[in-house]
Amino acid sequence: MGEPKPSDFRLEEVAIPQPGPGEVLLRTKFLSLDPYMRGRMSDAPSYAKPVGIDEVMEGGTVSEVVASNNDKFAKGDIVLGHTGWQTHALSKGGGLRKLDANAAPVSTALGVLGMPGMTAYTGLLEIGQPKEGETVVVSAASGAVGSVVGQIARIKGARAVGIAGGSDKCRYVKDELGFDACVDHRASDFADQLKATCPKGADVYFENVGVPVFDAVLPLFNTFARIPVCGLIATIQHDRAAARPDRLPLLMRNVLTKRLTIRGFIVYDFAARHGDFLRDVAAWIKEGHQVPRRYRRGAGERACDLHGPAQGQEFRKTTCSDRGVDS
Amino acid sequence: MGEPKPSDFRLEEVAIPQPGPGEVLLRTKFLSLDPYMRGRMSDAPSYAKPVGIDEVMEGGTVSEVVASNNDKFAKGDIVLGHTGWQTHALSKGGGLRKLDANAAPVSTALGVLGMPGMTAYTGLLEIGQPKEGETVVVSAASGAVGSVVGQIARIKGARAVGIAGGSDKCRYVKDELGFDACVDHRASDFADQLKATCPKGADVYFENVGVPVFDAVLPLFNTFARIPVCGLIATIQHDRAAARPDRLPLLMRNVLTKRLTIRGFIVYDFAARHGDFLRDVAAWIKEGHQVPRRYRRGAGERACDLHGPAQGQEFRKTTCSDRGVDS
Repeated sequence: MGEPKPSDFRLEEVAIPQPGPGEVLLRTKFLSLDPYMRGRMSDAPSYAKPVGIDEVMEGGTVSEVVASNNDKFAKGDIVLGHTGWQTHALSKGGGLRKLDANAAPVSTALGVLGMPGMTAYTGLLEIGQPKEGETVVVSAASGAVGSVVGQIARIKGARAVGIAGGSDKCRYVKDELGFDACVDHRASDFADQLKATCPKGADVYFENVGVPVFDAVLPLFNTFARIPVCGLIATIQHDRAAARPDRLPLLMRNVLTKRLTIRGFIVYDFAARHGDFLRDVAAWIKEGHQVPRRYRRGAGERACDLHGPAQGQEFRKTTCSDRGVDS
Repeated sequence: MGEPKPSDFRLEEVAIPQPGPGEVLLRTKFLSLDPYMRGRMSDAPSYAKPVGIDEVMEGGTVSEVVASNNDKFAKGDIVLGHTGWQTHALSKGGGLRKLDANAAPVSTALGVLGMPGMTAYTGLLEIGQPKEGETVVVSAASGAVGSVVGQIARIKGARAVGIAGGSDKCRYVKDELGFDACVDHRASDFADQLKATCPKGADVYFENVGVPVFDAVLPLFNTFARIPVCGLIATIQHDRAAARPDRLPLLMRNVLTKRLTIRGFIVYDFAARHGDFLRDVAAWIKEGHQVPRRYRRGAGERACDLHGPAQGQEFRKTTCSDRGVDS
């Protein structure tokens, strides 16, 4: 799994097209850059097709309608779509959803009110089921998902303890996202710090990273603790970890004696909860609970402003020119 | 954890007592010998008090009322109680439950209609949730719990694959309990046999034993498989297993990519389901689904007949004379 390089992509400038019958011309305002995109750059079998060579890289977007030949959309409408890494796009309207800028900042449709927010909402509430007074531990707490998990945990009356890499991220998690505490997993005494930060143990652990952070959380689990497994960013280190003594029997003994629930999920498993999610999180934002942020590099917000040139000028399109980075 | 020896116990013969006011005299018909008893012989901290030195060893029993000074019980009534390892006992009636011999053989109150049956029923239905056409794999399939798990799985329309130690047990599981298949975990090609026996993978794995059987089941899990963790008999081998490479990251990757649910439980967690359990399992026995058995050494039935001497004669009482077997 190599890292993508600039030479794997090509930036093209082409004339802005005019919308045909039934079409709208969209100008991208926000693009969500998400971990799943790395998978789309690989031919390895997965739950979705890869992006083809010379195709525009895909991605969720918030766009403004700048010209419309479609009765359902008017010039000035703001829409959620999936138009990819480009400043402008044509659409017949399929898959577009109109956004209400008065309900919430439109960029949130890619963050707290979008796929990352729904991942946090469903994983925490369907599997984690935090109760008042419980302790919810979240790894990758400054990330798009983790940041929302901790905030919803607090809304539900639980204590939110974040885990993040570095003091800057931890400060952000605690001071700006409002977690009760955050522990830096890079600290040499990380496990001791985490234990001291969870004097009543852990009732929920929202797993985003995997080994070795999990090792520090395992001894803290209370009876009936729930562990939604959302991601395992760190399992790229799997081979190194595998050289250690086997901890599977230790885990299973904890599962039995503490009656733990460990459950993996992806957001699409809970598609039926989308309406509940939009209703609840929009209400929480209105009440001032949520902290939707932009442009916080390395600190949870992936929406980036893509103000393109004015209509009629040249515009830029990023295509995936070489998908072979890990073939 | 040493094994109990005959010299840890003392067999006493005393005169059969006469019931006082409000008391009944019980004659033990069946005694359930259960794994938990080993814990009661140890002073180690646990969820229940140990049996004291010189006290009668405890145990669930089915008894006949042979004399009664209690309005609630008549001579000839059959009752479920917890009178321990003795042929006769006095009781004021507290904790006794009258059994209906027409509803099911009374020994089943200690087996399929008792604690082992309830463990199987709740673990399988609350956590395993088998659906029609799915494959349910059960370890310790000839045991008091496993034998019921497989039979309920079949009642729910699933395919029941047992795992047991030795060809005799496997024959019993398949031919007498009616499982679709049974694989001997002592076979050198056990993992290959299990895979061949589960051509559509495993949707539920009822875990009674732990490593190393779990290793053979892990690769077979289908997406959304459920793993109720009921027991880990084999984790006595934990130290040996721990010397192997770490498989915790492998497990967690499977949890995420296959969206597995792993959940530990003990029967008391589902106490609220006791009424449902009695109703359903009694109905299944009436319909001829269940195979309540007695006296099948090493093959699932723990009730043993304790026909004592006639009333008025001497009777035998087993006391725990030395609890120091693992102190």
